[in-house]
Amino acid sequence: MTAMFQTEPAFAPHAPDRRTPDRRAMANALRVLAIDAVEAAKSGHPGMPMGMADIAEVLWNDHLKHNPADPRWPDRDRFVLSNGHGSMLLYALLHLTGYDLPLAELQRFRQWESQTPGHPEVGVTPGVETTTGPLGQGIANAVGMALAERLLAEEFNRPGHRIVDHRTFVFLGDGCLMEGISHEACSLAGTLGLGKLVAFYDDNGISIDGHVQTWFADDTPKRFEAYGWRVLRDVDGHDADAIDAAIREALRPCGRPTLICCKTVIGWGAPALAGTHEVHGAPLGADEAAKARTVLGCEGPAFHVPDELRRHWDASATGARAQQDWDSRFAAYAADYPALAAEFSRRMAGALPESFAHWADRWLAEPRPAGGVASRKASQLAIEALAAQLPELFGGSADLTGSNLTAWQASRSVSRERGGNYLHYGVREFGMTAVMNGVALHGGYIPFGGTFLVFSDYARNGLRLAALMDLRSIFVLTHDSIGLGEDGPTHQPVEHAASLRLIPNMDVWRPCDQLETAVAWRAAVERRHGPTCLLLSRQALPEQAAGPERAGLAARGGYILAEAHWAPAVVLIATGSEVALAVAARELLAAQGIAARVVSMPSTTVFDRQNLAYRRAVLPDGVPRVAIEAGASDLWWKYVGLDGAVVGLDRFGASAPANVLFQHFGFTAERIAETVARCVRQPS
Amino acid sequence: MTAMFQTEPAFAPHAPDRRTPDRRAMANALRVLAIDAVEAAKSGHPGMPMGMADIAEVLWNDHLKHNPADPRWPDRDRFVLSNGHGSMLLYALLHLTGYDLPLAELQRFRQWESQTPGHPEVGVTPGVETTTGPLGQGIANAVGMALAERLLAEEFNRPGHRIVDHRTFVFLGDGCLMEGISHEACSLAGTLGLGKLVAFYDDNGISIDGHVQTWFADDTPKRFEAYGWRVLRDVDGHDADAIDAAIREALRPCGRPTLICCKTVIGWGAPALAGTHEVHGAPLGADEAAKARTVLGCEGPAFHVPDELRRHWDASATGARAQQDWDSRFAAYAADYPALAAEFSRRMAGALPESFAHWADRWLAEPRPAGGVASRKASQLAIEALAAQLPELFGGSADLTGSNLTAWQASRSVSRERGGNYLHYGVREFGMTAVMNGVALHGGYIPFGGTFLVFSDYARNGLRLAALMDLRSIFVLTHDSIGLGEDGPTHQPVEHAASLRLIPNMDVWRPCDQLETAVAWRAAVERRHGPTCLLLSRQALPEQAAGPERAGLAARGGYILAEAHWAPAVVLIATGSEVALAVAARELLAAQGIAARVVSMPSTTVFDRQNLAYRRAVLPDGVPRVAIEAGASDLWWKYVGLDGAVVGLDRFGASAPANVLFQHFGFTAERIAETVARCVRQPS
Repeated sequence: MTAMFQTEPAFAPHAPDRRTPDRRAMANALRVLAIDAVEAAKSGHPGMPMGMADIAEVLWNDHLKHNPADPRWPDRDRFVLSNGHGSMLLYALLHLTGYDLPLAELQRFRQWESQTPGHPEVGVTPGVETTTGPLGQGIANAVGMALAERLLAEEFNRPGHRIVDHRTFVFLGDGCLMEGISHEACSLAGTLGLGKLVAFYDDNGISIDGHVQTWFADDTPKRFEAYGWRVLRDVDGHDADAIDAAIREALRPCGRPTLICCKTVIGWGAPALAGTHEVHGAPLGADEAAKARTVLGCEGPAFHVPDELRRHWDASATGARAQQDWDSRFAAYAADYPALAAEFSRRMAGALPESFAHWADRWLAEPRPAGGVASRKASQLAIEALAAQLPELFGGSADLTGSNLTAWQASRSVSRERGGNYLHYGVREFGMTAVMNGVALHGGYIPFGGTFLVFSDYARNGLRLAALMDLRSIFVLTHDSIGLGEDGPTHQPVEHAASLRLIPNMDVWRPCDQLETAVAWRAAVERRHGPTCLLLSRQALPEQAAGPERAGLAARGGYILAEAHWAPAVVLIATGSEVALAVAARELLAAQGIAARVVSMPSTTVFDRQNLAYRRAVLPDGVPRVAIEAGASDLWWKYVGLDGAVVGLDRFGASAPANVLFQHFGFTAERIAETVARCVRQPS
Repeated sequence: MTAMFQTEPAFAPHAPDRRTPDRRAMANALRVLAIDAVEAAKSGHPGMPMGMADIAEVLWNDHLKHNPADPRWPDRDRFVLSNGHGSMLLYALLHLTGYDLPLAELQRFRQWESQTPGHPEVGVTPGVETTTGPLGQGIANAVGMALAERLLAEEFNRPGHRIVDHRTFVFLGDGCLMEGISHEACSLAGTLGLGKLVAFYDDNGISIDGHVQTWFADDTPKRFEAYGWRVLRDVDGHDADAIDAAIREALRPCGRPTLICCKTVIGWGAPALAGTHEVHGAPLGADEAAKARTVLGCEGPAFHVPDELRRHWDASATGARAQQDWDSRFAAYAADYPALAAEFSRRMAGALPESFAHWADRWLAEPRPAGGVASRKASQLAIEALAAQLPELFGGSADLTGSNLTAWQASRSVSRERGGNYLHYGVREFGMTAVMNGVALHGGYIPFGGTFLVFSDYARNGLRLAALMDLRSIFVLTHDSIGLGEDGPTHQPVEHAASLRLIPNMDVWRPCDQLETAVAWRAAVERRHGPTCLLLSRQALPEQAAGPERAGLAARGGYILAEAHWAPAVVLIATGSEVALAVAARELLAAQGIAARVVSMPSTTVFDRQNLAYRRAVLPDGVPRVAIEAGASDLWWKYVGLDGAVVGLDRFGASAPANVLFQHFGFTAERIAETVARCVRQPS
């Protein structure tokens, strides 16, 4: 059962402890900053910061290894606020410990272009490790960070040199634990025995609808023991000594991740509202805020923190010393292993090898057999070539390795016992995605992971967060249409290509052959600040004719693959498996006296970023256009206009062999040619 | 730990048991039908049917209450194959027990328009209760079915009359248990104490990538005990007596759902491949299939099942008797409680009350205050009105009741102790959606459930399956744009309206005011065979002027809300919160001499189904069009064409008060008027 809920928390009179200033006063500085910022914004979540302030105080002041002056220090501990609505707790911690986050930013909490958005956003606020708020994904990101740390340590540490040796700490609440992704990520973390991952469960018995018992009666400690975690039960989250003892226990190596279950009171310190869901996501109100200040012994003006407390919170000096220590150890490592040290620095900086672009040019120029392979196979061939150049590639699949073709000859599977560069994520699409995001956030690896395109649905908000966070996560999404065949409509994507293209900052590729697949893979790994989805066929696709310039053109997202035999009467736009149909239709149309240009459009998202002149050169004004894709038609009107036509699929698929489905749903050269002829002869 | 994996299953010599024919022979009939169908299709999953055949045999022959002649009998037990790839097991069961599924259909397994698609599809095959394949959702559907049974029993049973009294049985495997949704659904089932839910875990230690230990080392029994389930451990899934004893134990009331953990061998009976992942998803091959037949003692021609076995499998007589018994008990009930019996029959048939349409006409005709409310509030007002007419409405929210405004005055929250018509689903968006689908599949209720629109991402494949299954599930998705404000980009939907519209058979409404919200709600409850998403604002929206005909026009999905002051030079198309902006822009444009028609388009999906004449009357040829929606612009080109314009949002939002965001992102009447003026004067 969850913690017994205290309806009337009794706030003990303020009794200083043995430290100066006492720990409670330190924690209360966090509380008042949270209270004041939420009051100022008239919006936000004071309950969690007030509830977890004591835990945060002990962790950050006595255990967290970090340097406020360099939030990118590779060997810092990672801190993840999975219950991201408590953002003000994190902002207060960053501000007080000395990050470049001035008080003025806390005063602009949740305002336009402040560094203190409603939920923590990586890249906006120094010291924020990941963007959280969508519940459960923070803990999954943290699993990815802890995984990356372990793998990097195994790859780079040498006897006498521990240059990678840090921990990942997570705060999470009931919301995270109810979300299914917490199961996926924590089950995987337990299986892998990620011993340097430590999570703090804010067990306050409250979620937005009220007391959780009615909808969440899990025995959470038992659940996590079932995952193979070390569980520290019944820690008083308002007793600094108890918290400290639990953290010390959690830091004792045991080869398992640790969950510290902390009994807390949401909104601790608010005399009327503490322990109720009303304090979760709304300002206390001026009256309750003032009373809370009295309880907390902080009766100064808003946002005031006494200098003595500020001095004790400031982690600049200890942080600098910690990083200096690491710097000197890294220098010693670099002296003994100069190549490894340079490689480590390159990898953590996210830079590709200097030789990469040159190599990739030559690689793309290689001839490819005309016979053709499935684009998922082409993807595997690309991975094979890239992995030899990029040791940072970290592959995996959500239990579809043999179908996604994500493994390569030299890939080594990670297990509890040993490291590697390939992870069998299990049937956990969402968990995989968020873990990949955590690996990308940590640095040192470029993660890619596979599932069927249709099951990108399961992971969709993780894809979105990869895009929002500008992460180089690469999603290998195979079986990309009704071409999947017999498994039927539950497994056949229809709306998925279109819906992925809608996510801002997501690059989506649906290549038509081996060359375009290689181009897409190159673009994905060279794309430093954004994720990529690769949509790949189950079935074989013929290799299109390749002039020396095709690779460069394909990299622009859309290009003239086959020019019309004479002045074009129509432009056919196709992607992936439908490109070959368009090329065949072009011949049928020529026989009817209709000259058709074929534009291959492997990536609409990349094409949309090309300059207007290029786009007009590919899609000239005044020439009718017909788009062909075995999926939802809606997005294509953007390219063909009201006078054009789309050969698409606006219904669910069916269970039958792929060739039967392509026939029945009208994806044949003949049917396309008919549609085009109608469109050209009778513009509507 | 999971079951010890047996690398070399030793198939005991065929020793008949005390029954005639013996149970193993009965089970082997299922195995050979699965083997033969997969061989014939050259595609499919023999491993699970061969592994779970013994369990299925005992359950279906000795315990399952069903009548093959009437798959819609309200009080039948529900059987859910959550590991839906094992579809041939279910088809074999349905065929042999006497459902209208002839052998010829099994012989056309996975072929075009057969009744035996690759994964089970409700509505295609008699006796299939839900569409499964996307892992984890079957068990969640089953939780919904068991919930509906419990609530209906509490609502309709009377002393001496138990007309609702059936169980829900589920088969599931490692894949389902790895998926996060299994956590959400099973945690909820445990919390609610759904004692008539019985799940069989096919613990065979294998998933597609191989032996699961490397990626799935959960102590699953302990995990389910942590959820409050009764767990029966270590049942030999190939020992009929052990299975039978476990089922008998599971049927003993204890107020908790039951998980029966069955140790099985995947592909049991295939001498070389049993116990390996190779038997999971590919035909055995002619040679192995022949050898398996020898092992199984079934050496006849393909698809042959001896008459004696067929006779013993046939459940027609027992099924008819069971239903006759219920029929007579229902007749007695109807005699004592005629109104209740009629209501039960109406509810289970999914028909609305006869008076509903008339009432709804009057309801829509009521005046609504011009001041305006948020459309989420308008939705709550609609729920309030509808719930008084439709006792079958079953509401809920994924822990956002106060934000989604999904509760109403007379709603009663369900708990472990008591029934009701409202469920606090907890922070479980995907689980909620699939549970709702299960409730809809069971019948007797029209489920609706709320979350923030952005978190429809978490539930996306559940929404898709609702659409694929033609279910009347209603999704209340509030905070539908950057109008959400300070919570920031993690919580602000941008691409979501567009991406939901892409799902085939999904109706999506984004109403602009209270009247349109009422129209949308009416359409949702009257839509018998398909789900609806209601996209609702956080912020207040003014009530648009309503002539007597507006409700009827709005029901067509798009209509002329405000005609141009004179012959229209442009048509403004807007939805939801942007309709008021379009109306204001119309006035600004008129002052500039530009006559603009405003079309409100609350549902593109419904508008697309209107006849061409109507659509042309609303959007006349030759008049430029500008669409306005605070979300991804891509889909709107379908309506405005290459010469039109879209005022949309093709980037992530930001954290700031809503009015600031609308200003910064250009959603003001002035900016819209500027865009329109440019578009009209300088067609590109």
